[in-house]
Amino acid sequence: MVSPSGSDEAVRDTEAATVESVKSFYRRASFFESAVNLLQWDMQTYMPKAAAHYRARVVSEISMHVFKLVTSDELYHLLTNAQPRDELEEALLRVGLRELEKVRRIPPELYAQFVQEAAMCEHVWETAKKSNDFKLVAPHLERVLDLVRSIAEYIGYERDPYDALLDKFEPGMTAEKLRPIFAELRDFLTSLLEKFEREDDDRDPFCVKIDVNRQRTFSEWLLDHLRFDRSRGRLDVSAHPFTNAIGFGDVRITTRFAEDDVRNSIFSTLHEFGHALYALGVPEDLYGLPTGASASFGFDESQSRFWENIVGRSLAFWKGVHGKFIDLFPEFSHLGPEELWRGVNRVVRSHVRTEADEVTYNLHIVLRFELEHALINGQLGAKDIPSAWNEAFKKYLSLEVPSDALGCLQDPHWYGGAFGYFPSYTLGNLYAAQLKVALERELPLQSLVEAGDFEPVKEWLRSKIHSKGRLREPNELLKDVTGEELNLHHFKDYITTKFSQVYGVSIA
Amino acid sequence: MVSPSGSDEAVRDTEAATVESVKSFYRRASFFESAVNLLQWDMQTYMPKAAAHYRARVVSEISMHVFKLVTSDELYHLLTNAQPRDELEEALLRVGLRELEKVRRIPPELYAQFVQEAAMCEHVWETAKKSNDFKLVAPHLERVLDLVRSIAEYIGYERDPYDALLDKFEPGMTAEKLRPIFAELRDFLTSLLEKFEREDDDRDPFCVKIDVNRQRTFSEWLLDHLRFDRSRGRLDVSAHPFTNAIGFGDVRITTRFAEDDVRNSIFSTLHEFGHALYALGVPEDLYGLPTGASASFGFDESQSRFWENIVGRSLAFWKGVHGKFIDLFPEFSHLGPEELWRGVNRVVRSHVRTEADEVTYNLHIVLRFELEHALINGQLGAKDIPSAWNEAFKKYLSLEVPSDALGCLQDPHWYGGAFGYFPSYTLGNLYAAQLKVALERELPLQSLVEAGDFEPVKEWLRSKIHSKGRLREPNELLKDVTGEELNLHHFKDYITTKFSQVYGVSIA
Repeated sequence: MVSPSGSDEAVRDTEAATVESVKSFYRRASFFESAVNLLQWDMQTYMPKAAAHYRARVVSEISMHVFKLVTSDELYHLLTNAQPRDELEEALLRVGLRELEKVRRIPPELYAQFVQEAAMCEHVWETAKKSNDFKLVAPHLERVLDLVRSIAEYIGYERDPYDALLDKFEPGMTAEKLRPIFAELRDFLTSLLEKFEREDDDRDPFCVKIDVNRQRTFSEWLLDHLRFDRSRGRLDVSAHPFTNAIGFGDVRITTRFAEDDVRNSIFSTLHEFGHALYALGVPEDLYGLPTGASASFGFDESQSRFWENIVGRSLAFWKGVHGKFIDLFPEFSHLGPEELWRGVNRVVRSHVRTEADEVTYNLHIVLRFELEHALINGQLGAKDIPSAWNEAFKKYLSLEVPSDALGCLQDPHWYGGAFGYFPSYTLGNLYAAQLKVALERELPLQSLVEAGDFEPVKEWLRSKIHSKGRLREPNELLKDVTGEELNLHHFKDYITTKFSQVYGVSIA
Repeated sequence: MVSPSGSDEAVRDTEAATVESVKSFYRRASFFESAVNLLQWDMQTYMPKAAAHYRARVVSEISMHVFKLVTSDELYHLLTNAQPRDELEEALLRVGLRELEKVRRIPPELYAQFVQEAAMCEHVWETAKKSNDFKLVAPHLERVLDLVRSIAEYIGYERDPYDALLDKFEPGMTAEKLRPIFAELRDFLTSLLEKFEREDDDRDPFCVKIDVNRQRTFSEWLLDHLRFDRSRGRLDVSAHPFTNAIGFGDVRITTRFAEDDVRNSIFSTLHEFGHALYALGVPEDLYGLPTGASASFGFDESQSRFWENIVGRSLAFWKGVHGKFIDLFPEFSHLGPEELWRGVNRVVRSHVRTEADEVTYNLHIVLRFELEHALINGQLGAKDIPSAWNEAFKKYLSLEVPSDALGCLQDPHWYGGAFGYFPSYTLGNLYAAQLKVALERELPLQSLVEAGDFEPVKEWLRSKIHSKGRLREPNELLKDVTGEELNLHHFKDYITTKFSQVYGVSIA
């Protein structure tokens, strides 16, 4: 077991390759990751402007250190030689090895080049979006695409290079499985949308300016209402809301405040609360291990959507918070809980994904999935994106795209190299609807929400999902919890029932 | 040049040992230090409580990584083989090697044991202070003392083991040089104090409750008044005020607010502003290098004391800020600038160092210096501290010590293993007074301060001191800037002149 690479290595290699040594290796790496998390949280909250340049180098140096650790020969040696003593340990070695082997197939120079080009492309994208000039970023995106396609080849796949990328975000998911689900979803939603062709039927009751201080008070109150554990987390403000699990017992969320729409901060806070709850629910003995992450990006999104939409956009919720809401925002005192509820559930065809309602949202994702799938398979090049985008947008959402800034330049994902990420959002919505059905078999969700008694709901999610970390594959976990595979029916049913009520019409 | 320690080392060692490679090695280490700085800043400002345990492990892991880097054979090889091309490079190699050689003399196991025992002792000290129970911490402190004495032996010294420790904080300083200065200072101050035996001559005009929000507004205004560069720094709140130079272009200060004494936050803010200015004045090409630090702890303290005392407790300053002060705190509108100035310069014998005025402050330090010198030399043991403390306190400050909590348990330094640190505070005061004289030869300090025109003062300090980093030894730098060696006369003169005016009596 003595490696030829030198005394230092040799000492490590002659240590017994036990599961304990695997765990301690990962935990050591997680300490450096924790530092990176804090450095990034700070960049988006409190860091003075002039620090940006130096900070970028700090983050890159420490991230590279982590990357070297988790792709090291030493870790590979430990993972391949340790003997698991139970199912938990077996899962640790399996998940760890699976991740490590995938990364080790990518030549380090190729990966370094990708990181560099993607950072540059995302940087140029910011300007391109501001000046509504796709051509500026197109050559950069083409290079990123080439590198991503090449990385997919190195990682390997059975049928579709897209799967090599998708798997990073949703282990076990493939384009072949996604395509029929997304196609059915697209047809269901476009036909449903036709039933809401009454866009100027009533004015938006939320069109009122509300000062930021009161909005902040309400967001903090909401977190108290949900019994967010302040000893293990906090709320701050950032341009783009996010959740950052900085370390064990330390999960921070942010929200943003828009003076002209109080809904913005409310639903950002609820969304990020859902992510935070997941991170806080991972048990200490899994923390810092590959099995201590969430089951997938889709599962993580199911938790944020659960609190944002299934709880936060329910009538029961608005009955529960109505008193406090009116109290803080007397501007809305002429509105009852039902009117507020309708106000947070208006279906509006719009251009921007992050502002979309529950009905149109997934159409934004289906479009992105279809385009990125074609991009990775080489059926489209970077330069073809604007026309393909605008055409699909017209087809699915019956809207002309007025500018690339409001079209294919709106999201950072592709420009930062994150292909295969978008489906997570829709999977999150589908999982959430399916989880709701399972939860309601055991708990009276609506009455608990209305009473503000969230503990049983949080405990259900914690024990069934959060506490499992990444021990199970997402499809296994879904089956464990709901008793069946991903079933689109639950989402369709949820949407149909809900929006029949919101609009007071039968749309079944 | 190929080392026997393995392939990885070998690759590095065959790289040319140039000054550039030395710089890049240090800068790499500084990125990790920057992370530690942020982790520590966050611990004292925003971190949720439950995160403390995990965070301690993160800080310790990354600190140990930095320690390994800056004590590595690789760095030693680079430092001893690189060829300097100018004075700057020569200073870098000299300062770097001096630090490295000192640390390398300490056996790693001894150092690790010291770090562990000191952390434990400081932890126990917290309880001991709260419960006023010195006996609780005495055996821990005895162990720490043994280890510190042993470390001093390994580092080495010419005459006095204390010098091995002092040198870390004030390079080149020795007990032999300090002793006569501190003795003269002690005699001067004790005899001066007798002239202020009129303690109930007037009531403290600052005994008014002021809400924290307005205090915060005033501290922020003060920083604007001083043109603190917000793009490179920020002010936050913490239990114990501090300055943390997190990274290049990123220096953060904190203050604390006491409802019953508005002076607390004002002078904390000014004090930390002085430290911050020093850190911000180190030029980018020195940043992250051993020569990019401040010249010494004493020099660093001279800058904080300059802004806190020489500027902030001057009559000119209070004339300049009087309008804004009265505006924000109408509670004091019956007081003119002179009365406020007298109020911030009351000389009061008190038990706690951090609350002491400019006259009594250094007596607190002289006492600590004499005690820690005897402790390191083995003339005193840990258990002897309370009685030795109380006896000296009675002698120098004519006060009985009512409890160890207000006596030898008040400061964390010794319990955390920092012997040799205390003299920095007094050296800072002495340097500041000497710098004031030099500065006033070139600039009309009082009128600039009164006019709120601080830029020439800041630029003087920057160009003469801050921009030099650690290129010069503290005694050299003092001579460069003031034209002479440390001269106690300047401080005595400053104190005598000032307090004659404050008390309207001749005390010369």
